[in-house]
Amino acid sequence: MPNPITLAPVELAKSYRLLNHGPTTLVTSAHNGVRNVMAAAWAMPLDFDPPKVLVVVDSRTLTRELVEASGVFALNIPTRAIAETTLTVGTLSGRDGDKFDALGLATVPARTIDVPLVEGCAGWLECRVIPEPHNEKRYDLFIAEVTAAWADPALFSNGRWHFTDAGSKTVHYLAGGAFFETGDAFTVEPKQP
Amino acid sequence: MPNPITLAPVELAKSYRLLNHGPTTLVTSAHNGVRNVMAAAWAMPLDFDPPKVLVVVDSRTLTRELVEASGVFALNIPTRAIAETTLTVGTLSGRDGDKFDALGLATVPARTIDVPLVEGCAGWLECRVIPEPHNEKRYDLFIAEVTAAWADPALFSNGRWHFTDAGSKTVHYLAGGAFFETGDAFTVEPKQP
Repeated sequence: MPNPITLAPVELAKSYRLLNHGPTTLVTSAHNGVRNVMAAAWAMPLDFDPPKVLVVVDSRTLTRELVEASGVFALNIPTRAIAETTLTVGTLSGRDGDKFDALGLATVPARTIDVPLVEGCAGWLECRVIPEPHNEKRYDLFIAEVTAAWADPALFSNGRWHFTDAGSKTVHYLAGGAFFETGDAFTVEPKQP
Repeated sequence: MPNPITLAPVELAKSYRLLNHGPTTLVTSAHNGVRNVMAAAWAMPLDFDPPKVLVVVDSRTLTRELVEASGVFALNIPTRAIAETTLTVGTLSGRDGDKFDALGLATVPARTIDVPLVEGCAGWLECRVIPEPHNEKRYDLFIAEVTAAWADPALFSNGRWHFTDAGSKTVHYLAGGAFFETGDAFTVEPKQP
């Protein structure tokens, strides 16, 4: 049996750092006994504290229906080890059957909202929608407040990522099944002009 | 003398691929003889065709003033070779003097809007603001349509990135001067569940 996953709490004011480098995400949602997971490359931080995020959710998706009904979703940040799964959830519709079951995706419950979190991810943001009907209707754009954040403490702690191997790295989506890994970390100092 | 830079046109319907992997950006703007450049990690695509983008621009910045006055801006996508400059423009205010001059930043004019584009970047998106006063005021969030897109053809062509060395890679910002390079590319196929 695999070890149970560990979700270490991430301080809300630093939770933007889970998303700041632009990784692709999995959006999980649930309502009335139906749950779903979709891939979303178009997610980013919108504010630091209280932390807010943005995500684009197409109007034709089951996720859209569940998020509109429940007012909540989670952003799960997948690693390279589950990139194939990340791509695959983007090719299936939850209307054709539960994708978690179809793909053997294990989950743990979120703490502040009633949605599943996907195991094998590096970080998780629990989000409550701030209703903005114009943005939702015109742009498929959802704004939400982050109500809790978690990370695999082996990969993210004290506000910093420290990937342990290629499989543990977060991923960045381009198109057509093509991704980039998150690459080498480096630090620079401001120039004195 | 360095060679003049080449800006190859990027098909508008594929211009989202310049931003899709979540690189950090430089926002350039100009109005009435004043020009500015700021760093923005919070920029992403919002639609494919016609292409739209989002960017967060703090209300206290000179960039905000210029973008509100002119209704246009450009997103420049810097490479690792200019990461130090990228960090530095985020530590200066254009109100204290022209940052391009202070940092020796060479520019070329955009084609569809009246703003400078920063040389040494890997890609450029010329953007016209779609006025959304509520988003701008409440969230510092600007939505814009992409009116032209360009890339260094040595680094991006046919809708794909092909970085030539570490200095040519795009970069992803974390916090406190810490960045990631864009890492290795890889492709996956959807699973057959």
